Amino acid sequence: MVKNGVKRDIPEEIEKKYGNYESAFSRKPVYSRATNQVTAVHPGDSKMLSTVREAIEAAGLKDGMTISFHHHFREGDAVMNMVMEEIAKLGIKNLSIAPSSISNIHEPLIGYIKDGIITNITSSGLRDNLGAAISSGLMENPVIIRSHGGRARAIETGEIHIDIAFLGAPSSDEYGNVNGIKGKAPCGSLGYAKMDAKYADKVIILTDTLVPYPNTPISISQTDVDFVVKVDSIGDPDGIAKGATRITKNPKDLLIAENAARVIEASPYFTEGFSFQTGTGGSTLAVAKYLAETMRQKKITASFALGGITQQMGDMLEEGLVDNIIDVQTFDKGGIQSMINNPNHYEIDAGFYASPGNKGAAVNQLDIVVLSALEMDTDFNVNVLTGSDGVIRGASGGHNDTSAASKMSIICCPLIRGRIPTIVDSVNTVITPGETVDVVVTEIGIAINPKREDLKDRFKSLSIPQFTMKELKEKAYKIVGKPKAIEYGDKTVAVIQYRDGSIIDTVNNII
Amino acid sequence: MVKNGVKRDIPEEIEKKYGNYESAFSRKPVYSRATNQVTAVHPGDSKMLSTVREAIEAAGLKDGMTISFHHHFREGDAVMNMVMEEIAKLGIKNLSIAPSSISNIHEPLIGYIKDGIITNITSSGLRDNLGAAISSGLMENPVIIRSHGGRARAIETGEIHIDIAFLGAPSSDEYGNVNGIKGKAPCGSLGYAKMDAKYADKVIILTDTLVPYPNTPISISQTDVDFVVKVDSIGDPDGIAKGATRITKNPKDLLIAENAARVIEASPYFTEGFSFQTGTGGSTLAVAKYLAETMRQKKITASFALGGITQQMGDMLEEGLVDNIIDVQTFDKGGIQSMINNPNHYEIDAGFYASPGNKGAAVNQLDIVVLSALEMDTDFNVNVLTGSDGVIRGASGGHNDTSAASKMSIICCPLIRGRIPTIVDSVNTVITPGETVDVVVTEIGIAINPKREDLKDRFKSLSIPQFTMKELKEKAYKIVGKPKAIEYGDKTVAVIQYRDGSIIDTVNNII
Repeated sequence: MVKNGVKRDIPEEIEKKYGNYESAFSRKPVYSRATNQVTAVHPGDSKMLSTVREAIEAAGLKDGMTISFHHHFREGDAVMNMVMEEIAKLGIKNLSIAPSSISNIHEPLIGYIKDGIITNITSSGLRDNLGAAISSGLMENPVIIRSHGGRARAIETGEIHIDIAFLGAPSSDEYGNVNGIKGKAPCGSLGYAKMDAKYADKVIILTDTLVPYPNTPISISQTDVDFVVKVDSIGDPDGIAKGATRITKNPKDLLIAENAARVIEASPYFTEGFSFQTGTGGSTLAVAKYLAETMRQKKITASFALGGITQQMGDMLEEGLVDNIIDVQTFDKGGIQSMINNPNHYEIDAGFYASPGNKGAAVNQLDIVVLSALEMDTDFNVNVLTGSDGVIRGASGGHNDTSAASKMSIICCPLIRGRIPTIVDSVNTVITPGETVDVVVTEIGIAINPKREDLKDRFKSLSIPQFTMKELKEKAYKIVGKPKAIEYGDKTVAVIQYRDGSIIDTVNNII
Repeated sequence: MVKNGVKRDIPEEIEKKYGNYESAFSRKPVYSRATNQVTAVHPGDSKMLSTVREAIEAAGLKDGMTISFHHHFREGDAVMNMVMEEIAKLGIKNLSIAPSSISNIHEPLIGYIKDGIITNITSSGLRDNLGAAISSGLMENPVIIRSHGGRARAIETGEIHIDIAFLGAPSSDEYGNVNGIKGKAPCGSLGYAKMDAKYADKVIILTDTLVPYPNTPISISQTDVDFVVKVDSIGDPDGIAKGATRITKNPKDLLIAENAARVIEASPYFTEGFSFQTGTGGSTLAVAKYLAETMRQKKITASFALGGITQQMGDMLEEGLVDNIIDVQTFDKGGIQSMINNPNHYEIDAGFYASPGNKGAAVNQLDIVVLSALEMDTDFNVNVLTGSDGVIRGASGGHNDTSAASKMSIICCPLIRGRIPTIVDSVNTVITPGETVDVVVTEIGIAINPKREDLKDRFKSLSIPQFTMKELKEKAYKIVGKPKAIEYGDKTVAVIQYRDGSIIDTVNNII
């Protein structure tokens, strides 16, 4: 075991392979951008194939290859299961899958893992039954958890090489020009899929809506696409918003949101032309609502809003509170409609959004991000991956990307959830290192990272109680007691990469 | 000497290096896409530099490197001269320059060549005094002439590796997000520049209009840009249209245009949803005018117009005669305004336009292209590079790309120009091989490539006189006599690459 920069013990063979996390910006890569294999297409060559099976065969899928999918349809995605079913029928084994994320709907993966069809996974996260199965030790090789920016970096540097990308497309022409705003199941931005299309050797478009050539705007370009397959359905847009994007009615969450909005308003960054990202979980959507009210009152407008985008952001754009939306992933139908209506609602890819490997991601320009947490600890470390039982059920997402790169990262975190303390001595799993977190907002008050002397000064006059993280933890423990230690086994079931590729933590199996 | 597929003798050392042209589609590359060096940018890092000189030094320009420029400002470009002047002052020598093309305004290059600052050039073409100087043997190494699609392919495959790209930007933010439709000197599409930005190791943006972050739409992305320099002027948009884009009033040219329009209308491709590209020289702009009239009459609309785009195309788009414009280069202010106004006037890069090396260029989807010629011969070969005196004064452009990939290529070519025959036994220089040319249109009639039996049948009822190329040549010779042979020296001053990278011809010095 080798201790890393957030005091986690990392098994030597993993440390050797990736290097340990030191600090948020200790790596500044200079590298040759990853290459991919291109097969030229002549005039008259058709890219259309009749079935997913034909496309798998035409692309030359073989045992041991890496394939990828995007998760823009989230719980509504039909593509990964459809493709895996055909692959299973073809008897192909030992695949690595590298989807941008995995949802509950992908539970059939459990069977493919058991059958040896899938032997490696990298993903932003794992949910429900698949997460539980992995946490119980289902796989021989640990899952590699990467942030959205980290996945982009891994693709750009060649750390992930995708042999074949299977990309669901709300609309495509026969030559593979794709966007997410036309068709019978629009999903808005195709930000994650754009990376795979640029860097995979073979790119297969699966679409349920073929449109005449040329299909503009072009999110994925014909110049990167090998094959196009018409299928009945690529997914259910109703599944995109499932669970994630309703504004909370929970009074505690609303109180946290109001506190967070007041922190933003009192911060040095809340000035004309500021920029922000708010997440979609718990309190974070409500923050934007409160923030919008103050922006109206004080006549302050934002230069841009970033990130996963909802109707709420679209409304702020149309109202003129926000000048631009830069959108890597659209979270609801209102958000999709906003992208259709507004040229200033602009689609970007995951590298542009958050990669620490390119010549400058949008998160580097971000003033304020509001994030949520499953758990935080007295070192300000954040866990958004494993539950209080140690089981994998969340996702890294853009959490550590935005927290590190923004000027002020705010984590909204209730003191307790049910009978479980949320602020603890040490989080089960570190996704976001405490050094990149600036302010923690709870229902009873805030904690400012001691590193940020400037913010401590600034917020002196703020009439929200201020605590240390240790004080918050003690208050939580006082109410519900200290949580019992989780009983882990010896097997590493997940390796947590920090956005820069270093190892920030590992997750062991649950006994 | 080794004879190639258009019966040209190619010096052995050149044949050895690139391979000889065999036929239009004999190469179908499978390759690893070219890579470039990326230096990651952290939050807080600034890309802004004060002067061109600082940028040259920051990018690490050294003797022997390859640098590039785009030619979207054509005769109005201020960037190449500005940068070369600074480079000369720094005493850097032995550079290769790889601009997308070179205009008259770049005559100062002659001095830099004489001084050993520039020792290699690749370009689409050369004009006036620079062309004459090169043709007289100014350079030790031959210039490599590449088509627009061929340059894109050469960049994609790594045949051209750009160390530093100096890219003029009508508008940019401080992080390097660039477009050509905002700012004080808009140029419309940045199709050629987009290639360089993606593949160069270092990308320097020179802009005269800095705008707030994020500058959308994004033609060149912050993720590809290293440095941004604010300069007084990047060019004069009035220079874009100079000479190239007025509709002819010459009665002979108008007659040719009318004949070409009638050929199109009688062709099997003139059906609902057809696609076309018309050039900007001589008759070709007028063709679109006549074509538009017939489209109105017959209520036929085009799915897309491709290529260098003028106001005329914008007008056809707004009238509903054309559904989409896909634009690699905008040729006049009306064209630029059309791109600003219409989301269906869509910007593409040079690879998307015409590269034979990617997974399918737009030219592959093109039904009809109308092109011009300086000279044609009885084998249908086309010369658009050298004058009747053998001196380089033209450009390859998208000529052989579109002629090869479209379903029907029409060359508008007067029988004679002044006292010089335009249709000859053998062209001075082959840019476009005759096998890819379908119909030649002159003021007295047309010639159909014997390969195209189908078109011969189809055009039987067309009331335009039909000739063989030999007959047309004889008619030309009868009027003005057979042209005197040009006296060439022994030095190869230009190597003509076909779009696929093979050598289709060479040009020797003029004695």
